[in-house]
Amino acid sequence: MVDIATRVYNHKWKIDPIVRSLIDTDFYKLLMCQSVFRNRPDTNVTFSLINRSKSIRLAELIDEGELREQLDHVRSLSLSRGESTWLRGNTFYGKRQMFRPDFMEFLEGLHLPPYHLEKRDGQYELTFEGRWPEVMLWEIPALAILMELRSRAELKDMGRFELQVLYARAMTRLWEKVQALRELDSLRIADFGTRRRHSFLWQDWCVQAMMEGLGQRFTGTSNCLIAMRRDIEAIGTNAHELPMVYAALADSDAELRRAPYDVLADWHEEHEGNLRVILPDTYGTAQFLEHAPDWLAGWTGIRIDSGDPAQGAEAAIRWWQKRGEDPKQKLIIFSDGLDVDKIAELHHLFHGRVRVSFGWGTLLTNDFRGLVAGDGLAPFSLVCKAVAANGRPTVKLSDNPAKATGPAPEIARYRRVFDVDEQTAQPVLV
Amino acid sequence: MVDIATRVYNHKWKIDPIVRSLIDTDFYKLLMCQSVFRNRPDTNVTFSLINRSKSIRLAELIDEGELREQLDHVRSLSLSRGESTWLRGNTFYGKRQMFRPDFMEFLEGLHLPPYHLEKRDGQYELTFEGRWPEVMLWEIPALAILMELRSRAELKDMGRFELQVLYARAMTRLWEKVQALRELDSLRIADFGTRRRHSFLWQDWCVQAMMEGLGQRFTGTSNCLIAMRRDIEAIGTNAHELPMVYAALADSDAELRRAPYDVLADWHEEHEGNLRVILPDTYGTAQFLEHAPDWLAGWTGIRIDSGDPAQGAEAAIRWWQKRGEDPKQKLIIFSDGLDVDKIAELHHLFHGRVRVSFGWGTLLTNDFRGLVAGDGLAPFSLVCKAVAANGRPTVKLSDNPAKATGPAPEIARYRRVFDVDEQTAQPVLV
Repeated sequence: MVDIATRVYNHKWKIDPIVRSLIDTDFYKLLMCQSVFRNRPDTNVTFSLINRSKSIRLAELIDEGELREQLDHVRSLSLSRGESTWLRGNTFYGKRQMFRPDFMEFLEGLHLPPYHLEKRDGQYELTFEGRWPEVMLWEIPALAILMELRSRAELKDMGRFELQVLYARAMTRLWEKVQALRELDSLRIADFGTRRRHSFLWQDWCVQAMMEGLGQRFTGTSNCLIAMRRDIEAIGTNAHELPMVYAALADSDAELRRAPYDVLADWHEEHEGNLRVILPDTYGTAQFLEHAPDWLAGWTGIRIDSGDPAQGAEAAIRWWQKRGEDPKQKLIIFSDGLDVDKIAELHHLFHGRVRVSFGWGTLLTNDFRGLVAGDGLAPFSLVCKAVAANGRPTVKLSDNPAKATGPAPEIARYRRVFDVDEQTAQPVLV
Repeated sequence: MVDIATRVYNHKWKIDPIVRSLIDTDFYKLLMCQSVFRNRPDTNVTFSLINRSKSIRLAELIDEGELREQLDHVRSLSLSRGESTWLRGNTFYGKRQMFRPDFMEFLEGLHLPPYHLEKRDGQYELTFEGRWPEVMLWEIPALAILMELRSRAELKDMGRFELQVLYARAMTRLWEKVQALRELDSLRIADFGTRRRHSFLWQDWCVQAMMEGLGQRFTGTSNCLIAMRRDIEAIGTNAHELPMVYAALADSDAELRRAPYDVLADWHEEHEGNLRVILPDTYGTAQFLEHAPDWLAGWTGIRIDSGDPAQGAEAAIRWWQKRGEDPKQKLIIFSDGLDVDKIAELHHLFHGRVRVSFGWGTLLTNDFRGLVAGDGLAPFSLVCKAVAANGRPTVKLSDNPAKATGPAPEIARYRRVFDVDEQTAQPVLV
């Protein structure tokens, strides 16, 4: 077992690149990448880092040289033979050859495209512009690098035993969460914590602790590298990025209104079963479901990623019932701002009424709150989003106005087109 | 840094003998051994294991084969060249060549003598009989072996991450103690925890954590192997064993009464300064001090190892004053049942009035209380004492009748000879 504290103490960071593999990324990124590679390969997209926690002045905490070093390291990576073999030969969601030969060839030849980095107002402006299937793969490594460089900055002057005890405390805290989750009958929970993890080694530890502590209740990880190394399921389906870019490419309001369904029509052609999971909140869940075509009601599940999760799940259940579907056969995946209490509450509310699953992110892989003076290891809200497609800005509304992104006039236009009126703001922790 | 949890999980105990060196013992054992080797080498002494915690049925917890294997391993050990060089060449208590050449030759040629092991009533009867300077060296390894085999029995079915979290909790607890001790100005504290340690690796971790966390406040360890490896001071002076055997050898009541002073007269010839520390409680502190010769008042310090420690220290201070000595120049070492609160209390009471020092034992190196279900890792009261010398039973009264040892008629005789009447019983935790 890796002695994380000693590794942190000894290496002065040189032997541990933060991102050590092209598949140290979320599984859904690869699924979406394949879909984009097939359906919209030539779209020019810009991804941009957005730090919603303005008080965390990243450019003052993180050395620019170190940041460039880590980003450059990612650009030097390409798919290893073992990784390629795993992607080509492994069974994902019960399916062999999930990744088609032409996509695998593309991936095997890929190096991530250049990045653009500037400092402004104590923050880093980090953008990636280029062909969609290439630049989209920057999102997760970019976030993981920023998150971990910030952890390293906080840890770098700590003593050897101080570090051991810091990790001892974090381990104890996680284990207590695992013990609490063990009490939930038929729980199904996966690690979704790559993007905002404290560090790679720590995420890997968390996953293994979940394996031992939760057994069958732990269904897998979104992280492909860890899934491969620990021989567990890689988990994930799709994200807001797809409807956001499709929407930005729409040439009229009518096309815009249809864009979120077009995305899922493409997905429908490609995937079945548990991969048919709707993420309905990009432009408001209620309107999305109301106007959804019937074939979507036949999909397996819905992922609730913003707004009040219990309300969202109730809306989904009502929608399925209205469309003549049996909610008991359906899957609801909760993935927004989860921690043990919330997981237990939602589990108790919905277990038995639908199939319930949890994608546990930041507070699984980065709960160092209160463990150092000044709370400099507390997680914060960093995202890396597609902000433009073929020169047009993207927009996300979500079910929480605090999570909306895009230029204000465009947000107003989208609200009009998608008929989204009053929404209740929820605090965004992470 | 050793990853203790993984070592515990992986090795199934074979690669880690519990006692891995003849100097994995307390420094005072070697000092006393030299004194015995010089003054009473041919005394026949019996040491015997005594488990004061009867509810801990050691013979049911610990496999006899494993116990014999560990004891046999100790018998196979002899002083390594590096250990010998360290003992011969190192400076102890500011003195070069603390160990004389004839003693070093004896030690270099030594293998520990045979042991005698039986099971009775769920306990092990473990005795060592032979020449005093040889059998006395069994005490510490025997205790360390029993303590660690009991830990191992409790740990052997635990999962890998369960173990990591167990040690994480123990580390966190110790670190919190260290943090609290750091608040005490001019604290001087040493590790006295070899005999009742959770394990060797754990003691070694505790010592290193104290080094980092306490800096100059941490004065060293009683454990010679750890002192050598970690390049810190080896700490210790003398113990009850000396007066107990001297007393047993006395041929009359008058000789008996004089025996505790004879011991220190021999010590006086050999040692100076901080090694001149009186352990006054073997047959009652009050009477010992009252009848002590004046040259003893000139000694540097007193170690308080039973009874109410604050009362004992006050008695020592009054005694020094009465004998015309300045208590501010004197050293009081507290070494009985210490934990952070008690250390802080005693430090506040006596710092500035005398030189104060602490020998912290069981609750430094074995505080796993409450960390497993059933509390099977809580420390307990195991001792290994000289019970007979040249065929006569030994007696210890101490300042706590709960710590008295020896046959009842002999205890009564000693109480008469040493004029010890009412004593207040204190609970014996460890």
